[in-house]
Amino acid sequence: MSKGVETRTAILDEATELASRVGLGGLTIGTLATQTGLSKSGLFGHFASKEALQVDVLLRARERFVDAVLRPTLSVPRGEPRVRALFEHWLSWQRNGLSGGCLFVNAVSEFDDQEGPVRDELLRAERDKAESVLTIVTAAVTERDFAGDLDVEQFGFELEGIMLAHHHNSRMMRAPDAESRARTAFERLVESARPH
Amino acid sequence: MSKGVETRTAILDEATELASRVGLGGLTIGTLATQTGLSKSGLFGHFASKEALQVDVLLRARERFVDAVLRPTLSVPRGEPRVRALFEHWLSWQRNGLSGGCLFVNAVSEFDDQEGPVRDELLRAERDKAESVLTIVTAAVTERDFAGDLDVEQFGFELEGIMLAHHHNSRMMRAPDAESRARTAFERLVESARPH
Repeated sequence: MSKGVETRTAILDEATELASRVGLGGLTIGTLATQTGLSKSGLFGHFASKEALQVDVLLRARERFVDAVLRPTLSVPRGEPRVRALFEHWLSWQRNGLSGGCLFVNAVSEFDDQEGPVRDELLRAERDKAESVLTIVTAAVTERDFAGDLDVEQFGFELEGIMLAHHHNSRMMRAPDAESRARTAFERLVESARPH
Repeated sequence: MSKGVETRTAILDEATELASRVGLGGLTIGTLATQTGLSKSGLFGHFASKEALQVDVLLRARERFVDAVLRPTLSVPRGEPRVRALFEHWLSWQRNGLSGGCLFVNAVSEFDDQEGPVRDELLRAERDKAESVLTIVTAAVTERDFAGDLDVEQFGFELEGIMLAHHHNSRMMRAPDAESRARTAFERLVESARPH
């Protein structure tokens, strides 16, 4: 990485962390300047506008999700083991990732009804994630770990629900059993997906 | 209702609608004044501060959730029929309620890591809702519609997940099949809860 790219990535990582706490919509060149101690004019050299900064933060968060969740998942053999790896790495992402919780969960609530470039980028990120999940689940069908007539999109919908309930229960309710509840729900989902 | 209470309720309903779109954190006396055309000084007569307004909006949204979801649910016979009624009325709440989606889903993302009176009130609301769900599911066990050894808290966790996945898929992804996916997931959950 060149020095310029490194600096930009370091700024974006701070911005991502900040956005997870104050909300992506609350992230501005001004709040980022206050947080990082960098000058506003310096930051404007990296990001043309608040919206450009918010889009870049989403792109950076996607890279981090790929590194933390998808890449290690894809190193596990195809089939049920890979589906389990996906679940485990996704749980870790929610547990150990950003201090304010999953940036995507928070951003979806903020931007689901705000048309514009931030929503567009968020939709691309969510679609790509959903497609990655479908690919991983479909491979478990091909490997015959899961039933041939499994509705893989339904599996993806229910897995998303488990992850959202885990996020809600761990972050809002601070329930100590959020993770074990998520595991129990996941086991029931996997069990229902196996050949019958 | 006295005239004063009626006016206050009407203002709070507009504020609730506004908060569903801009986020509860984005709701201030100033944005509400712009939206309603009422004077800021008039609004300060009703709400002492931004935080007091946000807490009052949560209390009003709870009343509306009780009226739209819990009250009609409790008019249905105890047992599985009442659990089904809860699911249907909750779906309608997410589909037809506020223009910006469920206020509670959005507020949880915003306030889960912001200590203070708004989070405290939100936690009370979420706890009360979770308790109502548990009571309704437990009655289905007592009525022997559901298995005697059902983990009712697990049922509540998974139902919450289905509702959150529905909210995500309908509002962010604008998926036309969000509701049918939620129904399929709910049927699987109910089936697993029946006596075996």
